[in-house]
Amino acid sequence: MKEINVGLLGFGTIGAGVIRVFQNNAEVMERRLGARLKLKSVADLDITTDRGVTVEEGVLTTDAMQVLTDPDIDVVIELIGGYEPARTFVLKAIEHGKHVVTANKALLAKHGEEILSAAAAKGVDVMFEASVGGGIPVLSAIKENLCANNFRCVFGILNGTCNYILTRMTNEGADFSSVLKDAQAKGYAEADPTFDVEGVDTAHKLAILVSMCFGTRIDFDDITIEGISNITPLDIQFAKEFGYKIKLLAIGKRENGTVEARVHPTMIPVNYPLADVEGVFNAVRLVGDFVGPVMLYGQGAGMDATASAVMGDVMAIARDQLAGHQARTPAMGYIPDCIADLPIKPMRDIVSQYYLRFTVLDKPGVVAKISGILGNYGIGIASMIQPDRKKSEAVPLVIMTHEATEALISDALADIDKLDTVREPSHFIRIENDME
Amino acid sequence: MKEINVGLLGFGTIGAGVIRVFQNNAEVMERRLGARLKLKSVADLDITTDRGVTVEEGVLTTDAMQVLTDPDIDVVIELIGGYEPARTFVLKAIEHGKHVVTANKALLAKHGEEILSAAAAKGVDVMFEASVGGGIPVLSAIKENLCANNFRCVFGILNGTCNYILTRMTNEGADFSSVLKDAQAKGYAEADPTFDVEGVDTAHKLAILVSMCFGTRIDFDDITIEGISNITPLDIQFAKEFGYKIKLLAIGKRENGTVEARVHPTMIPVNYPLADVEGVFNAVRLVGDFVGPVMLYGQGAGMDATASAVMGDVMAIARDQLAGHQARTPAMGYIPDCIADLPIKPMRDIVSQYYLRFTVLDKPGVVAKISGILGNYGIGIASMIQPDRKKSEAVPLVIMTHEATEALISDALADIDKLDTVREPSHFIRIENDME
Repeated sequence: MKEINVGLLGFGTIGAGVIRVFQNNAEVMERRLGARLKLKSVADLDITTDRGVTVEEGVLTTDAMQVLTDPDIDVVIELIGGYEPARTFVLKAIEHGKHVVTANKALLAKHGEEILSAAAAKGVDVMFEASVGGGIPVLSAIKENLCANNFRCVFGILNGTCNYILTRMTNEGADFSSVLKDAQAKGYAEADPTFDVEGVDTAHKLAILVSMCFGTRIDFDDITIEGISNITPLDIQFAKEFGYKIKLLAIGKRENGTVEARVHPTMIPVNYPLADVEGVFNAVRLVGDFVGPVMLYGQGAGMDATASAVMGDVMAIARDQLAGHQARTPAMGYIPDCIADLPIKPMRDIVSQYYLRFTVLDKPGVVAKISGILGNYGIGIASMIQPDRKKSEAVPLVIMTHEATEALISDALADIDKLDTVREPSHFIRIENDME
Repeated sequence: MKEINVGLLGFGTIGAGVIRVFQNNAEVMERRLGARLKLKSVADLDITTDRGVTVEEGVLTTDAMQVLTDPDIDVVIELIGGYEPARTFVLKAIEHGKHVVTANKALLAKHGEEILSAAAAKGVDVMFEASVGGGIPVLSAIKENLCANNFRCVFGILNGTCNYILTRMTNEGADFSSVLKDAQAKGYAEADPTFDVEGVDTAHKLAILVSMCFGTRIDFDDITIEGISNITPLDIQFAKEFGYKIKLLAIGKRENGTVEARVHPTMIPVNYPLADVEGVFNAVRLVGDFVGPVMLYGQGAGMDATASAVMGDVMAIARDQLAGHQARTPAMGYIPDCIADLPIKPMRDIVSQYYLRFTVLDKPGVVAKISGILGNYGIGIASMIQPDRKKSEAVPLVIMTHEATEALISDALADIDKLDTVREPSHFIRIENDME
């Protein structure tokens, strides 16, 4: 029976998961492939810590170059994470004619172009299903069976930490910092959670989704990113009253030759399937011109789910290898020459409905003034509530608007924030009612 | 630019959808493929009825053989439906070395083995993503990125007609026959709805899912099939009171070398993602040993969604063609020699929780007698309700059981139905609490 040799860089949590797939599922992979996948080398600086899996003698090494230059190795799995030495190692693997599978979205967001160009020049595959949505097979769905569609939009709940925190804030009425602390204690949030809670991780994943759905290069720095640390129990409560849930949503849209690419807390109607995605689960909603809406849901992280996606990529490469050819499906789903450079729409030009929360003195005429300013900017009011009326103290006033450009909203809010009767800077949250 | 020529058999609704993909999305398909897909011939007995699409001169023919024998045609799409002449045409296409894409689950369920053997012998691909879940890319997910998993179970809501009827019965409290009539008037149900409402269509799809998830041949006749025509508003109401929804569920499980394959109305907890699948939407929940649960959701029917799946298959074949090789991924996801013959577990051996509804005289001692019989069979009672007490009339008595084999349940019900105080044959609905 033919063998495909695989090398692994990075013996951390996910690495241990990958090794377990090789050990536990060798038979089913053989039955599907008609060949044997062999894990020939595993490189890590630390090869002594117990990861709960036993590796055959001679497989572990501290020398990554041993994996990268081994002429018998066909596929290199990169699970080191971060920018360096991951970038150098991946480029070295490509240089040596090896296919690469990675889960490293940060690397792809920053050095994707360089890596994919090198791979295309060398005629090898770079696959990265595990980088978006963990075990959810979303990238292969876009590249493979849904590829006859023009995608109109893509929405994602892509960060388990944020979704876990928002879910608990929603279910328990707790505030952000206390849930974060508990999430850290339980291992659902990192000691430094910035990357997750401020939306950077979600944006890395969105960059990949937008590129693959719309066939365009994305400059990561053009993505608008807002995290969830400013979301208050009050906002969640008001959202509920209006029939919404707040999710950290990755949003990609394409219209008239421009794309939107943004990550921010978003109110979505409670009866939408994405609103039901709870805790550490992830989900992606794709809307194609023929398929309509498709939602994919599953575990967005974790050693086993991520290992599933990594090994799915290894199997795809192995099938190509056995068939005697390479790079059957382009890495980003489009022939490199056919990838466009669609501009990202500036945030001021996006159109949305908005939830606006003002903190105002409870005096006669305040509502009139605020709604007057909104009216001057042509912003329609869909509904308004002003609960907890306590004379002379600052109280919340909540307005849900009709569709307006972000430019109008931010200009109007700047004016409103100058009013004497407005005691705190206004809050707003974008609403996504139309997910088609 | 290279061209891949495609022939289409069947110019009905889906056929028109496929033609529209060729017309509207030629550019995006070219950018993804690096080659042109050309629809060279479309055969149908009726080529004069207006289907809302204009076809180039010379493309339409009433002679299927013209498509099947054209040496320029690489891929044949079969959208005739039914057993014959679809079977003959598909075999003829294979004989002439053409790859085949079909949406015909009935054909696959009955003649799949014959067709796939012929294709394997000839070295051509047969693909059929559109046959299960319409536009949802579930078969490619199983065959491609999730293929490093051993699947434990698969659950599906796979028939839009049934789900539409059950959703309306649930939301409106209406009865089966009145909703069915309305669904027929609206075009959501066929004039003869038997195939859909009695679960046969769902079972055709389950046969494919079970084979592809577990790598086994399935004898369609071994699948237990129960439809939704016996579901009453009363059952739906009781389900709600216990926190469940009733869905027509396709269930596949594998354990210890046997599989379960069954289609029947099933109570699922309201907070499960599958419970939220409403109306004509479809969804599949797959559970793999590494990926854990994955749910895929989308439009299970309709010309456009189905055309998306068909054309996704055509694109996959075109990629293989361009790479100069064939049958890269086996049709059923397993190398034919590695497909097993796992026995289907007899229904009497399955283990489930049960909803039991008795119609009893409201006399003292009735509950004691029924619970006594259940106790004699070792069936545990999880909860019981007996609403609407009206002296001396027949009233419902509902019992939710703990897990028991179907053998014990049916034997117990046979005994209970002999009681004088039991006025109608007992009803039962299986409960699926553990979808992992």
